[in-house]
Amino acid sequence: MDKRVANADAAIAKLQDGATILLGGFGLCGIPENLIAAVRKRGTKNLTLVSNNAGLDDFGIGLLLQTRQVKKMIATYVGENKLFEQLVLKGELEVELNPQGTMAERLRAGGAGIPAFFTPTGVGTLIAEGKEVRDFDGRPHLMERSLRGDFAFVKAWKGDRWGNLIFRKTTRNYNAVMVAAADHVIAEVEELVELGELEPDQIHTPGVYVNAIFQGVGYEKRIEKRTVRKRAEVGEAGSSATLAKTDFIARRVAEELRDGFYVNLGIGIPTLVANHIPAGMEVVLQSENGMLGVGPFPWEGEEDPDLITRERKQ
Amino acid sequence: MDKRVANADAAIAKLQDGATILLGGFGLCGIPENLIAAVRKRGTKNLTLVSNNAGLDDFGIGLLLQTRQVKKMIATYVGENKLFEQLVLKGELEVELNPQGTMAERLRAGGAGIPAFFTPTGVGTLIAEGKEVRDFDGRPHLMERSLRGDFAFVKAWKGDRWGNLIFRKTTRNYNAVMVAAADHVIAEVEELVELGELEPDQIHTPGVYVNAIFQGVGYEKRIEKRTVRKRAEVGEAGSSATLAKTDFIARRVAEELRDGFYVNLGIGIPTLVANHIPAGMEVVLQSENGMLGVGPFPWEGEEDPDLITRERKQ
Repeated sequence: MDKRVANADAAIAKLQDGATILLGGFGLCGIPENLIAAVRKRGTKNLTLVSNNAGLDDFGIGLLLQTRQVKKMIATYVGENKLFEQLVLKGELEVELNPQGTMAERLRAGGAGIPAFFTPTGVGTLIAEGKEVRDFDGRPHLMERSLRGDFAFVKAWKGDRWGNLIFRKTTRNYNAVMVAAADHVIAEVEELVELGELEPDQIHTPGVYVNAIFQGVGYEKRIEKRTVRKRAEVGEAGSSATLAKTDFIARRVAEELRDGFYVNLGIGIPTLVANHIPAGMEVVLQSENGMLGVGPFPWEGEEDPDLITRERKQ
Repeated sequence: MDKRVANADAAIAKLQDGATILLGGFGLCGIPENLIAAVRKRGTKNLTLVSNNAGLDDFGIGLLLQTRQVKKMIATYVGENKLFEQLVLKGELEVELNPQGTMAERLRAGGAGIPAFFTPTGVGTLIAEGKEVRDFDGRPHLMERSLRGDFAFVKAWKGDRWGNLIFRKTTRNYNAVMVAAADHVIAEVEELVELGELEPDQIHTPGVYVNAIFQGVGYEKRIEKRTVRKRAEVGEAGSSATLAKTDFIARRVAEELRDGFYVNLGIGIPTLVANHIPAGMEVVLQSENGMLGVGPFPWEGEEDPDLITRERKQ
């Protein structure tokens, strides 16, 4: 029952050319940094990678694109990687794009033994091409197939030698769903703890899903678009005249909110709304990655890479 | 954002005759005792109840069968309730039986906006009657429809006024999946705590799924089949001659286990195997309700109703 291996190199000893690998993470948040580095070092080729994003040009999955180790990417958003774009346009990289919820659900189905399911998402779009459409309750739905990997690479905060895992903040993202959807699951953790240290009711992933575990080293935990709050943005140092135009819009939008609202904030100006919630108002903000309880941008020095995924471009 | 209501009576003020209610719990473990009592008191009729079990003759859902408030039960196992059997045989109660995993998945799909999915479970059995069968990857699968309720009644350990919930031990069972699958979700909790007391990463159900919450009173938390360990059973007080025949079988079966095994123990003699795991061997036992990490039967006085669901009959 001891699933510990020495390091990432030992963990991927059985990885073969042509394998399909599920990689946890959302943007650069909660990605298996050590395992990605080990695959690059090993030089395994013709890989199919399943991941929400394709990393940056020089970080995350981007590192495996540089070395042309990837044959196909199954992803939802790949817009932060110029090399990715070039490779696709040159026909050197296949890409299969999915709506984000559909991809999460395809993986979840793969883990639950469900080969196919129906979803309203994507009907009438390019995503629907070649897929069965069927009406349920008067509404058309697409049939989507499940997704599984030969391997899943996941990154957790803490784990024990049985493979029980706890994730920190938004790093749980795809990691939690991928553990059930692969034949061989490797977990890298920031801290390997003693058996019994993790409170059973707080374990996010029971060890039964994990085949190998090791404590990673040298986590960079890069923040894709670091954005901090400025005093002027929240009106503490000046009048509305000091606000940028986008903040002015966000402040006006915030006035539409009412106590008890749940509000999903998309990337861009919407995330700025979080900076302008009136004091005393109780609303719950949801970020694009699904996390509830988003607050305003952090003050300088209070950034947390396990919480921030992508922030607005300046 | 304050979802607190005074009590169960106030929580079900809008419950109408003919409603469909999802009820959390597995056996008597984690059932919404206060809400069931309130429905009985209110006298609402022609209800469709979705629950793993139908309670006992005098506890849980059984209380609503006594008063003939239930038109239909959607369940997986109803064998502990004689009144249930009588009502079905007399044609006074409709019943729709589901494989356990299928029912959990139907609810999960209902919560995820998925109207239908394919599963291999039930192919070629009575369950398949009238359902589409389709091959995926060379294996026949049934198409199952999702399940939703007008209401979901869930029972949690702790909750706050935003509706964030934490469950204790195996009481999470169906409660955790039902919260997403109903139009109006009412949570009764043993302890209503202040906002901020629940650690975000440890919350099992985010408040967004919950419409009303109250602190329940007078929890009985009955144990269906209380079974404790006896000294003789584990060989501490005697030789194998003192073992019951069933324990003798269980002890022999335990000899087949090997370090690192995951073992699912069904109800009956299999659960006795847990009493005979050789010292020093690391295996993970799974109980019928899905919980990993089962141990031997508790010693007298150490029973925990949030852990024990059904135990073997003596």
